[in-house]
Amino acid sequence: MNKDAKYEAGFRKLEEIVGTKTAEAALKAFDDLDPDIGRYMTEVVYGDLYQRPGLDLKTRQLCTVAALTALASFKPHLKTHIDGALTVGATPAEVIEVILQMAAYAGFPAATTGLAAAREVFEKRGLKPR
Amino acid sequence: MNKDAKYEAGFRKLEEIVGTKTAEAALKAFDDLDPDIGRYMTEVVYGDLYQRPGLDLKTRQLCTVAALTALASFKPHLKTHIDGALTVGATPAEVIEVILQMAAYAGFPAATTGLAAAREVFEKRGLKPR
Amino acid sequence: MNKDAKYEAGFRKLEEIVGTKTAEAALKAFDDLDPDIGRYMTEVVYGDLYQRPGLDLKTRQLCTVAALTALASFKPHLKTHIDGALTVGATPAEVIEVILQMAAYAGFPAATTGLAAAREVFEKRGLKPR
Amino acid sequence: MNKDAKYEAGFRKLEEIVGTKTAEAALKAFDDLDPDIGRYMTEVVYGDLYQRPGLDLKTRQLCTVAALTALASFKPHLKTHIDGALTVGATPAEVIEVILQMAAYAGFPAATTGLAAAREVFEKRGLKPR
Amino acid sequence: MNKDAKYEAGFRKLEEIVGTKTAEAALKAFDDLDPDIGRYMTEVVYGDLYQRPGLDLKTRQLCTVAALTALASFKPHLKTHIDGALTVGATPAEVIEVILQMAAYAGFPAATTGLAAAREVFEKRGLKPR
Amino acid sequence: MNKDAKYEAGFRKLEEIVGTKTAEAALKAFDDLDPDIGRYMTEVVYGDLYQRPGLDLKTRQLCTVAALTALASFKPHLKTHIDGALTVGATPAEVIEVILQMAAYAGFPAATTGLAAAREVFEKRGLKPR
Repeated sequence: MNKDAKYEAGFRKLEEIVGTKTAEAALKAFDDLDPDIGRYMTEVVYGDLYQRPGLDLKTRQLCTVAALTALASFKPHLKTHIDGALTVGATPAEVIEVILQMAAYAGFPAATTGLAAAREVFEKRGLKPR
Repeated sequence: MNKDAKYEAGFRKLEEIVGTKTAEAALKAFDDLDPDIGRYMTEVVYGDLYQRPGLDLKTRQLCTVAALTALASFKPHLKTHIDGALTVGATPAEVIEVILQMAAYAGFPAATTGLAAAREVFEKRGLKPR
Repeated sequence: MNKDAKYEAGFRKLEEIVGTKTAEAALKAFDDLDPDIGRYMTEVVYGDLYQRPGLDLKTRQLCTVAALTALASFKPHLKTHIDGALTVGATPAEVIEVILQMAAYAGFPAATTGLAAAREVFEKRGLKPR
Repeated sequence: MNKDAKYEAGFRKLEEIVGTKTAEAALKAFDDLDPDIGRYMTEVVYGDLYQRPGLDLKTRQLCTVAALTALASFKPHLKTHIDGALTVGATPAEVIEVILQMAAYAGFPAATTGLAAAREVFEKRGLKPR
Repeated sequence: MNKDAKYEAGFRKLEEIVGTKTAEAALKAFDDLDPDIGRYMTEVVYGDLYQRPGLDLKTRQLCTVAALTALASFKPHLKTHIDGALTVGATPAEVIEVILQMAAYAGFPAATTGLAAAREVFEKRGLKPR
Repeated sequence: MNKDAKYEAGFRKLEEIVGTKTAEAALKAFDDLDPDIGRYMTEVVYGDLYQRPGLDLKTRQLCTVAALTALASFKPHLKTHIDGALTVGATPAEVIEVILQMAAYAGFPAATTGLAAAREVFEKRGLKPR
């Protein structure tokens, strides 16, 4: 796959997860600093890693939600990936379970911070988890 | 569920994931310091969190592998949970994908450290991922 | 202790540290997602860990302030526990010492972020540390 | 160097990096909690570490920008040190490169969070990186 | 206090916590790289922070044990400070409580890693916590 | 630049920093798990990020040393990058300054852990920093 094909595949994968509007915004997010940055990230993450066979997209997203909850420093990214998890087929209950489970591995403050992020995403989507 | 029932359920769940021998060792790991510690952890993590419906055991384990790879400070725990992920149905390829994906969210040193842990588990099990 | 007794003991302990209003809010914080979450956290942290003999409540709170300052990602939790430390007998000067000491172990940005959180708690309580 | 001389040297070094106004604000930031805190930090970081020969000030600042981007929890401190890096001779392009490179070592969320901080500093200074 | 007095006070404080032999080793640990490093650390941490009134030495040490357990990356330092906590009056039970409590704030892997470090210190001292 | 050209450029850059032998070992490190992994990392880090103009290689390496010292979980990677920093022109004294400076931003345990890693690299190279 040459570089342009990789970029195209990456953009389509990102679009599949977060929707066209968010994908375009992500791609252009740093155009004022350097337009290669958005392009680079799209290629490297969604044109490479997420193109690999062997793991379904929903599991990929839930694993990212788990990691970002545990790292606890990236609320905007966590919200984007919770939203993406829902888009590719995860239920609100599954998202809640993944985040709550992080209490065991990263502590309760990480879990409650993640749950608060999930609530914001659910509310924006008009989802009622119960 | 009363406390003893919770402990029993927790121990059986832990056994299901890591096997009887490792479960018993984990339970007794801190008996010399205080026997309530192993009991407490078994109850709280495997008698409570892992008993909740709404997420299958394989996804739970892959999410834990993702988080421990990203946190990057807990190699023995990561190895135990990689082993547990394989026990409950994950393939070596799925484990590799989850760990490699963490390069995007936690950087390449975290991913390569996780891959090295996975190799040790695969070798102990006599698994050839390719 | 059965589960309800543990929950009751946990809630009373939490109440002792953060006051009735905050304890009730904490307990219900995730009721819209799942009412078991608040109950679980109350039991596990305040019904189990904090019930253990061998460490006084003030030292427990100061140690939590130390850890949350060092982790540096949980300002709301840090503020709650600074407030709780003051409630169970710590002085503003002791809180300041604990946070400042973290400069040595987690760096100056962690310490100054913690000090800023302490100031907000002191101001809300009308405390003048000097 | 006696203690007052160290403090004076530290304050002048801090002034050189962040300007007189920010240096004075940093020094007094915790005077309401304890005036020794600002004095201590000025001495220890800028009166000691930054006085050591063997590394130019621009490289020191870029290394601090790298570390704070990787740690990902200290946006105000990161912005201050990005601003300081520009003051002591780094170009916007150099700052962008350092932050973007952290994607490899600490992941993309850390890098994009750092780039967003850099943009805010560039905008305040009226700098156009392209 | 001039610089030499601060260094002297720092060394005596460090000696009080970790004993003469370990204090001397810590002071000289980086003499092959630069003898100012050990001197600097002794002054800044034990000649400054630990000289401040307002917090007893035992609480200081327990807070450091809490933070190093939560940070989870510094086993040798954690062991030194557990040993120091015991020297300045903490009991093995208090050390265990502080470390176990970190399960709530930093997760179980951090707590169990800390407990394993504590065991090594207890064994070296011939202490039986039960 | 097409994918093969990017890989070639990446390998040559990695070779320039760590030497042919280490570059080849890094490239093949995960061939038993999946040969695309080493190739992917070489392309993404050294074929993309490190190819960007605007920052000299020595500063890139010192910034990586700073970040890995602050993150404190990746000793083998830190040693490789300290060695690489020396190869592309940094002096032992510059490496020491960068690592020691991290005491201010990530705490003394991170700095001393980094200094110990540096010593091992210096010894292997037969370098005497004093």
